[in-house]
Amino acid sequence: MVIEGCTVLVHDDHDGIGFTEDAAIVVRDGCVARIAPARAVADLPAAERIDGRGQVAMPGLVNCHTHAAMVVFRGSAEDLPVEEWFNDRVWPVETNLTDHDVRLGAQLACAEMIRGGVTTFADHYFAMDEVADVVRACGMRADLGWAYFSSQGPAGRERSLDFALRHRDGAGGRITTSLAPHATYTVSDADLRATAGLARDHGLRVHIHAAENRDQTDHSLARHGRTPVETLHRAGLLDVGVLIAHGTGILQRDLPVLSSGTGRIGVATAPRGYLKFAWDPTPVRLLRSIGIPVGLATDGAASNNTLDVWESMTLTALVQKAAEGDPRWLTAHQALDHATTQSARALGLDGRVGRLAPGHRADIILVDLTGPHVQPVHDTATALVHSARSSDVRTTIVDGRVLMRDRRLLTLDVPAVTAELRTRLPALLDRGHGGRIQHYDG
Amino acid sequence: MVIEGCTVLVHDDHDGIGFTEDAAIVVRDGCVARIAPARAVADLPAAERIDGRGQVAMPGLVNCHTHAAMVVFRGSAEDLPVEEWFNDRVWPVETNLTDHDVRLGAQLACAEMIRGGVTTFADHYFAMDEVADVVRACGMRADLGWAYFSSQGPAGRERSLDFALRHRDGAGGRITTSLAPHATYTVSDADLRATAGLARDHGLRVHIHAAENRDQTDHSLARHGRTPVETLHRAGLLDVGVLIAHGTGILQRDLPVLSSGTGRIGVATAPRGYLKFAWDPTPVRLLRSIGIPVGLATDGAASNNTLDVWESMTLTALVQKAAEGDPRWLTAHQALDHATTQSARALGLDGRVGRLAPGHRADIILVDLTGPHVQPVHDTATALVHSARSSDVRTTIVDGRVLMRDRRLLTLDVPAVTAELRTRLPALLDRGHGGRIQHYDG
Repeated sequence: MVIEGCTVLVHDDHDGIGFTEDAAIVVRDGCVARIAPARAVADLPAAERIDGRGQVAMPGLVNCHTHAAMVVFRGSAEDLPVEEWFNDRVWPVETNLTDHDVRLGAQLACAEMIRGGVTTFADHYFAMDEVADVVRACGMRADLGWAYFSSQGPAGRERSLDFALRHRDGAGGRITTSLAPHATYTVSDADLRATAGLARDHGLRVHIHAAENRDQTDHSLARHGRTPVETLHRAGLLDVGVLIAHGTGILQRDLPVLSSGTGRIGVATAPRGYLKFAWDPTPVRLLRSIGIPVGLATDGAASNNTLDVWESMTLTALVQKAAEGDPRWLTAHQALDHATTQSARALGLDGRVGRLAPGHRADIILVDLTGPHVQPVHDTATALVHSARSSDVRTTIVDGRVLMRDRRLLTLDVPAVTAELRTRLPALLDRGHGGRIQHYDG
Repeated sequence: MVIEGCTVLVHDDHDGIGFTEDAAIVVRDGCVARIAPARAVADLPAAERIDGRGQVAMPGLVNCHTHAAMVVFRGSAEDLPVEEWFNDRVWPVETNLTDHDVRLGAQLACAEMIRGGVTTFADHYFAMDEVADVVRACGMRADLGWAYFSSQGPAGRERSLDFALRHRDGAGGRITTSLAPHATYTVSDADLRATAGLARDHGLRVHIHAAENRDQTDHSLARHGRTPVETLHRAGLLDVGVLIAHGTGILQRDLPVLSSGTGRIGVATAPRGYLKFAWDPTPVRLLRSIGIPVGLATDGAASNNTLDVWESMTLTALVQKAAEGDPRWLTAHQALDHATTQSARALGLDGRVGRLAPGHRADIILVDLTGPHVQPVHDTATALVHSARSSDVRTTIVDGRVLMRDRRLLTLDVPAVTAELRTRLPALLDRGHGGRIQHYDG
């Protein structure tokens, strides 16, 4: 495949971002084979040629932390503090989910993400065999983990391990897996330690909620005399690969602890939900100062309302300026760094995704910059971060396969999914049973 | 015209917002004639029928404060504190603008706004005859004011008055006009007083920047012993209709002053730029507590990057929750209230726009809620504010005339405008002359 005539977002050896104008991308066997001047490959024989004029080709976006199937609850639990959101709304209705609901939700979520230029997502949820099936069929890339609480006893952890071992390197390498203890406040210290052991024994990464907000950190300090990050450290989780969801409650005192970890640590930031819950943002500047990659995420749509990673990129730029009181901080180039290099590193997928460079998987999106809301383009990075929208993504490619062409989805049938989902809504939202999958006391 | 099969956003007598399902809107002579069940008007003869199934019909958005033509500088002055933004970037390049540049910019801006569901904008800029011409041709509604500084002498004020008198009630009533002193820090007290007198004599409103940020308020207190709002009060501007742009530096002590004003006072909030400049947000909760309408705005694209009022609506909901530390505050219904009733009141256009009700002008947008990023819809208000995007606006109607149908612009030619604009960019960005239109010392 040859994508020609586009502007290509490229990285230098120091993570710097630049743009090569009037270029072509040659894709072979699902990988980027070459980035060249368009005229140099004009006569190259190709099974498929894509006209990229007026568009920017960039690495597909990575959603570093989501619960894809929760799109079925999108907009059903609004304007609430997180305690009520969990205990009165979300955890009660999650008891209603069937495996098939998770499948429908994952299909809808993948449709939304492909349309929004997301090519990889890290999913932390239940009934993950269904999600793996959907990923296999729709062509996306994903890191999947089956969530568990200590309240489930050892069975939860065993199921998470079993899933991770069965699906690792699935779908021709598009599926990677992680162990998925829910959080430092729902999984006991002993179970976290056991998880770290399993991760080490099996070479798996761990994906976990920790220091989600400042209150959790304060509660942890009051109850245990240590922060959630210190809890991760004590359990040995910072010495295996770990992806920390949110981390808005990470404190200055956590920095040396994080630095001392011998595993690859990443943090996923989902800024929209933090605004809605009135949390602080993830301390991106602190984390950057010690070299911890911060990837972009959306969390589930029950809190975030969309799975729009492009919006997470834009909001990260905007909110970080305000939070630091510094208009010069978190430039458009830095935001693109989080969307590409840092997101890939947060998931341990650097070298494979996050760059358009020879040897990397051909996970590519084409973004239209000709719209009246983007023109004129004085600076391509700024145009991408501050003017373009996820709806300007016209083409989404994973492993060299086109999943969306000119905004038409090729691997998912949205009307069929939404029609079937509509029949399930009353049962899904029923809270008459009075149960819940877990109690929040973070 | 009949728009049928849609869900219609309607207001009750207490500004409450509701949704009428499977409804039809009958438009006659540019006005909403009737909202009825779809079946009740199925046989009504109509010159045009629009299929609104799967879509929400709502009042067109109002951009309560912008500098439309500044789209030509979009993205050219990034990551800077406001002093440098004004003095080193924007005010130098504004000396380069020709009347024709303003025309091109206004055309591009109107194209962007129509595509984003904006039907009315309040523009505060220079060469406003050009903007009036563009508004006349493209079919939008606008309140236009020719900006002036005291540094121009009396000529600036006279030109603003002359423009306002020549164009008031222009374009079949689609154009209203305001006097447009630039700001409390660039227009002297004497000139502000003279402006209030002219406004009273001629029955005009005044559109002005004031208390844009907390620093301006602090400087004003240090220099003059009064806040910018107290300056407006002293000049008599709170006793004529006044639209205050930004007001992020409005203090508690300003509330009784604002309440004592006998004119109709409104505030325009453009939250995106405040995040970029690391300003506080407009104190919406305080202003609501004294009944001052807060309308949504984008400011110019040189600071805001887009003219996306839909994003302003979403950001207002998000940022206000975070700023107040209260997830229950500024609900989706409240955000829609700001986008409709409060924006119309801020511009003094209530009774004419901001509602779909008999006798109101037929300024209507149709918003598609079938996309995978919006489905399923548990709550229509939440779906609009937190999941839908400006790109989901499919049809834009002003005064009963369709300006965009199924995302195709009918009154503006974007490729022609952007092609011509491209040739002007080097000259527009030239700062070699060392001049600027004004010095910022707010």
